[in-house]
Amino acid sequence: MSYQAKKLINDPRDVVTEYIEGMVETYPLLQYLDGFPNIKVVLRADVLGSTYDKVAVISGGGSGHEPAHAGYVGEGMLTAAVCGDVFTSPHVDAILAAIRAVTGPKGCLLIVKNYTGDRLNFGLAAEEAKSEGYNVEMVIVGDDCALPPPRGVAGRRGLAGTILVHKVAGAAAAAGLSLTDVTAEAKHASEIVGTMGVAFSVCTLPGHVTSDRLGPGLMELGLGIHGEPGAAVADLQTADIVVSHVLKQILSTETKYVPITRGNRVVLMINGLGSTPAMELMIAAGKAVPQLQLEHGLAIDRVYTGSFMTSLDMAGLSISIMRADRIILQRLDAPTKAPFWPVSVEGDRPPAKIPIPLPPSKIETNVELFAKPQELGEQGCILEVAIRAAANEIISLRDQLNEWDSKVGDGDCGSTMFRGATAIMEDMKKCYPLNDAARTVNEIGMSIRRVMGGTSGILYEILCKAAYASLKDSPVITSKEWANALAAGIAAVSKYGGAGSGYRTMLDALIPAASVLKERLDAGVDPVNAFVMSADAACSGAESTKNMQAQAGRSSYVSAEMLALVPDPGAMAVASWYRAAAIAVESRLRPSKD
Amino acid sequence: MSYQAKKLINDPRDVVTEYIEGMVETYPLLQYLDGFPNIKVVLRADVLGSTYDKVAVISGGGSGHEPAHAGYVGEGMLTAAVCGDVFTSPHVDAILAAIRAVTGPKGCLLIVKNYTGDRLNFGLAAEEAKSEGYNVEMVIVGDDCALPPPRGVAGRRGLAGTILVHKVAGAAAAAGLSLTDVTAEAKHASEIVGTMGVAFSVCTLPGHVTSDRLGPGLMELGLGIHGEPGAAVADLQTADIVVSHVLKQILSTETKYVPITRGNRVVLMINGLGSTPAMELMIAAGKAVPQLQLEHGLAIDRVYTGSFMTSLDMAGLSISIMRADRIILQRLDAPTKAPFWPVSVEGDRPPAKIPIPLPPSKIETNVELFAKPQELGEQGCILEVAIRAAANEIISLRDQLNEWDSKVGDGDCGSTMFRGATAIMEDMKKCYPLNDAARTVNEIGMSIRRVMGGTSGILYEILCKAAYASLKDSPVITSKEWANALAAGIAAVSKYGGAGSGYRTMLDALIPAASVLKERLDAGVDPVNAFVMSADAACSGAESTKNMQAQAGRSSYVSAEMLALVPDPGAMAVASWYRAAAIAVESRLRPSKD
Repeated sequence: MSYQAKKLINDPRDVVTEYIEGMVETYPLLQYLDGFPNIKVVLRADVLGSTYDKVAVISGGGSGHEPAHAGYVGEGMLTAAVCGDVFTSPHVDAILAAIRAVTGPKGCLLIVKNYTGDRLNFGLAAEEAKSEGYNVEMVIVGDDCALPPPRGVAGRRGLAGTILVHKVAGAAAAAGLSLTDVTAEAKHASEIVGTMGVAFSVCTLPGHVTSDRLGPGLMELGLGIHGEPGAAVADLQTADIVVSHVLKQILSTETKYVPITRGNRVVLMINGLGSTPAMELMIAAGKAVPQLQLEHGLAIDRVYTGSFMTSLDMAGLSISIMRADRIILQRLDAPTKAPFWPVSVEGDRPPAKIPIPLPPSKIETNVELFAKPQELGEQGCILEVAIRAAANEIISLRDQLNEWDSKVGDGDCGSTMFRGATAIMEDMKKCYPLNDAARTVNEIGMSIRRVMGGTSGILYEILCKAAYASLKDSPVITSKEWANALAAGIAAVSKYGGAGSGYRTMLDALIPAASVLKERLDAGVDPVNAFVMSADAACSGAESTKNMQAQAGRSSYVSAEMLALVPDPGAMAVASWYRAAAIAVESRLRPSKD
Repeated sequence: MSYQAKKLINDPRDVVTEYIEGMVETYPLLQYLDGFPNIKVVLRADVLGSTYDKVAVISGGGSGHEPAHAGYVGEGMLTAAVCGDVFTSPHVDAILAAIRAVTGPKGCLLIVKNYTGDRLNFGLAAEEAKSEGYNVEMVIVGDDCALPPPRGVAGRRGLAGTILVHKVAGAAAAAGLSLTDVTAEAKHASEIVGTMGVAFSVCTLPGHVTSDRLGPGLMELGLGIHGEPGAAVADLQTADIVVSHVLKQILSTETKYVPITRGNRVVLMINGLGSTPAMELMIAAGKAVPQLQLEHGLAIDRVYTGSFMTSLDMAGLSISIMRADRIILQRLDAPTKAPFWPVSVEGDRPPAKIPIPLPPSKIETNVELFAKPQELGEQGCILEVAIRAAANEIISLRDQLNEWDSKVGDGDCGSTMFRGATAIMEDMKKCYPLNDAARTVNEIGMSIRRVMGGTSGILYEILCKAAYASLKDSPVITSKEWANALAAGIAAVSKYGGAGSGYRTMLDALIPAASVLKERLDAGVDPVNAFVMSADAACSGAESTKNMQAQAGRSSYVSAEMLALVPDPGAMAVASWYRAAAIAVESRLRPSKD
């Protein structure tokens, strides 16, 4: 199962320098030292060590944890980040170059994750810088809560909690504190944070094959961020269970790794390990908050959710919990220009978030209108006749429409239309306010919404809604208003559906119908005659779709020969119900004609 | 090859609502409407539609594109985001609820990605809202540049360029513009942006198995964000080639999809598709900028790099290019509280970033000192004798140290120490300033740095550097200064290395030696005697490591029996060179004793 993971890189040896080049292209306030490939230091473009009047805060370590640490360089957070090769501590010369570049008279604090290589290289650089006359302090962060004490020489590993220590130190430095005080705040922060991780996949070093250590259906608990195995392997669990387990481990009263007890206030960090999407991290955040509140008796002051300290392309997350107090919150909330520190998290949270109630519709529903049976006027009777004829026509055409659609579409046009027509027949008897043409058109749309679904359903609903909006403000509805309503409906269908004339859609029946209707009415033709003539135009239009080559999607899987033989079923459906309605209205108004 | 991807979720049907819950837990300024599971709307907690005095900007669509669109809700960007199920357009009722919740007298703009479902549902909601009396406008974004025209009914898909349109519209609305003007700016923005994507993996819908469509070593060009196949499949290429291809396609003079020509100013967006780490996105950004400048003749005004519009857990990226003008840049730079809009990108970039030169060391090197041969004083001669004796002892012990180390470590202790001792012998002849004890100790550290490497190399270097710092400020160096220097070196090794007494390290020889040295000197013992006595203490200490159980790492793979038989080779090495030096000094100063 081992394989070469796909990475968007060039030469695997250049990943760190090319990453840094991308960082400074993206962020105008960042710069790097001219020391590639050995010295890979990202620093604030606006800080010159000799004149810098704040304590410089420097971190770094092996690369592969992006956006850590370069992404946290910026006013209010880190002054410089020293990047080693992937999972390799930076060399002492690189660290020393960073110290020299940004350290002013107030000195600098090195924040180091607890790994032997980092401790030694940063330590030696600190000693060298001191011998050059710089004031240098160092704080080592070991926030890992995965393995039980004692941890011996190596101690607890530095994980995502380090980012919170960066922020506290960076904000303290920005506030103008002395090196002693900045160091004290950073040390304090490092002592009140705990972290544990869960991996769903191993990470792949650039240019290497991927290990098959973690098979399907398994996850690793208590992993580090350098691809080292976790404390235990377990069957994959739901987010609820994973989060619960991790929180319990961090807050364990046996290891006593973090000094957090019931009733404390805390900040929470949900950290993606590299390839876990925001959706999954947010799901974990949404579960961790109530669990901490209800099961652990903690108050949550801030939640940071994102990918802050990663392990290349590893899937999974870590959770960090830091005890909160007034100063810690002030430091975390302080503004920073560091590009990857999360924004809009600052400020006190409401004790509980109650969702906002759904706002009501502005349309007042006339309950009475629908409650009692109506005495239909002449217009109402005509409307009823037209609707019934149109619906019955569609009901009778189900199989024919399905057959056409099976040749050029997905074969359900007739069944979908049948559902709509049946619902209209049912609802008309129950509640259509047939004396009010506008509202009846709106109700037809509602019947369709209830049962039709799919693209055709919503297009018919848009047709009805736009026609309703056109009709509803007219006190009297004549043939002219009907023609305008039809045009408005067609415009909306075209606008939102994206089709026009000649696209093999329902519009190829509707557009000629509306056009003929308006033209005949403008020419003074009798409205009933105009209606019937427009129905003939709808039928011709629908038939003519046989000669159209389909647009977009369909053309890819229906042959040109088939498209030449079969009309568009949607257009045929429109032409059929339109014509049936016209004939029924004509019969009702001119029975003598027979 | 199809398999069940590992996701950190609970019930696949709940991913969107649980995502929203995590969003509002993380961001205090976000809220959601109380309409789960059908109505999934995230909105600004501080906006009440009836009193909102700005144009509301609403977007949304199917979920699975996180942080789009809920992550862009905030002052200065979206007022609300309507979330459908994964890859499914939100229902018209949800869109209508969002419109009602945030739309005030100035109306609202709907920004819709060009997909049939979204067009129709947002379109119908717009028509319904209009019939309720709201002022509603809609802008459809189709920024896809992957497929050649014509694109028929469906048209060009909406991709990550939509995020830039959100920002332009949101900033225009925040500036107090009318609905007409906000709509015009959004429409303009949508017409000057183009996007194309490249996928390295397919995405996996929650609860589904992963398709094996895209095999090893392949990538898909011109994909969409809903798992639909791309325009072409190709062999995996380097970042340089992928970026070059995508830029050419977007700026193609054949499709003319974006009105961008040589000499134009543009903004660039490098967008991760869900599981691509920041490192790889930054590498792409670092390559895209010079290619746009040099090959396409464009000036780059802003670069946005991150995961803005994703496709669940898909690996890969899309690139968007938007033509920039004064108004566009002003809108993109305007402040926003939307949590996922990238920060610290605003402001003009320098025309080219020249890396900052490496700062020099503050220590002035006395070139003359090293250039000419020295006349050694008495102290210099003693120092030379001690160093030579110590180095020769280590050279002679190579095989013995390797043998011990092969039983309890990685077997190279002797070889590593041999390299250091050999380098010291070579360098001493060439350049050690032996009359200056402090500097000579520093130079020993430099020799070790040059050749030893590994943990032991850097620990010895730290020992030397700290001893140097202790010695260098003393005008006269007596036995007391040497004792203090040894103590300072031990303190630094312990601090940065993390070990103490009893950890089976070099400190188990050094600590007793330093302790006896100080104690004997304080008691008034002759310095040479004190040196020899302290050497005996070093040897006893090193021998006693046999009885120590190792700390940390080693205990996991070396048996307790073996640890009881073999002393720590690092401690033995220290005791050996220390004792050899003491004996040599004694012989030199008291030849009569023999």
